[in-house]
Amino acid sequence: MTDGRDAPSPTRRNTLATIGILLFNEAEELDVVGPWEVFTASAMLLDEAGDAGDEVVTIARDAGPVGCAKGLRVLPDHTIDDHPRLDVIVVPGGRGTRALVDDTDLLAWLAAVGVDARWITSVCTGSLLLWASGLAKHRRVATHHSFEDEFARLGDVRIVRDARWVRHGNVVTSQGVSAGIDMALWLVGQLHDPAHARATQRYLQYDPAPPYAADV
Amino acid sequence: MTDGRDAPSPTRRNTLATIGILLFNEAEELDVVGPWEVFTASAMLLDEAGDAGDEVVTIARDAGPVGCAKGLRVLPDHTIDDHPRLDVIVVPGGRGTRALVDDTDLLAWLAAVGVDARWITSVCTGSLLLWASGLAKHRRVATHHSFEDEFARLGDVRIVRDARWVRHGNVVTSQGVSAGIDMALWLVGQLHDPAHARATQRYLQYDPAPPYAADV
Repeated sequence: MTDGRDAPSPTRRNTLATIGILLFNEAEELDVVGPWEVFTASAMLLDEAGDAGDEVVTIARDAGPVGCAKGLRVLPDHTIDDHPRLDVIVVPGGRGTRALVDDTDLLAWLAAVGVDARWITSVCTGSLLLWASGLAKHRRVATHHSFEDEFARLGDVRIVRDARWVRHGNVVTSQGVSAGIDMALWLVGQLHDPAHARATQRYLQYDPAPPYAADV
Repeated sequence: MTDGRDAPSPTRRNTLATIGILLFNEAEELDVVGPWEVFTASAMLLDEAGDAGDEVVTIARDAGPVGCAKGLRVLPDHTIDDHPRLDVIVVPGGRGTRALVDDTDLLAWLAAVGVDARWITSVCTGSLLLWASGLAKHRRVATHHSFEDEFARLGDVRIVRDARWVRHGNVVTSQGVSAGIDMALWLVGQLHDPAHARATQRYLQYDPAPPYAADV
């Protein structure tokens, strides 16, 4: 009889995870780069420690530059037709989600990726695409505060308005824009361990101090 | 005699500001995109309100894709030889700053831009470039926590270790990576007004909730 201390932990390190972040025209910049920075910083620290580092890639429908919602132009690493197997998918939000709700090829790709992924995640209005692909149907989900009412009216979804990110099974959805940073840090702690997530937070010097809590 | 309520405020809206964010190889992604998102979201809200919106642009030494520190590839809007006049310059940090400390052309450009700019800012180790260009010499500056000791040894600078961002005259420097978000929001309140900065924060849903404050 053992006390189980040596049993493999589902959240221990040395787990190699491949994380894919979807890029599309009019994706919101910080929805993409907040999680990107968290996951790549985590991977860098794992590499430096001699552990197997995670791989983080961007994936777009087509090759060539993507024009984000506020005008930043980003070159994707892969297309949806040619990318590594994903353990984690991150779907950002932004105005561009509205056009993609009718993109059956993209939604079919997303549904297929979701079958194999350990974690299916979104930031901001990215949860609309998880819903449209079927991955978030009848789930509890978060989205940008300005989209909650409209999303609720679409039906077949339970909008959570009072949590910064929401886990329902292996589907994790966050509120607007900057919430993706917090969600990604939490997921780093699930993929590896909380101590490593704290080291990642320390590297990012993420001790937020929003100004103007007072009207000065 | 008036009570001054109708006097123009130096921080009122309708001020058009052009904000330039420097891009270079191995710039840290969130150092760039944190301020980018804050300033472009602010500009969008000004536009929607019918006020003159700010302009936000990226500027690199040369045309063509820039490879950031964690591998994201970004296309700059302008080069240092051809860009609009800047009211605000933002210099990100990242490993790439080390090579640029000896880039006399870039430092001369930065010094010249700084003469005309209303605000000279940096994120993370970007303060090293402000220092090397002369703009931050003998100023109080912030930088990434891991670089404070080394920066102090370079001399002719006063490293502030206990503030998330530091203003000395019109030079504003922030601590590592994510601190650029807070600094940029503060600057939006200075360029326009605190109420507008709070509206920008609300759009970004920036109510940070870092996980793992406890070891769980």
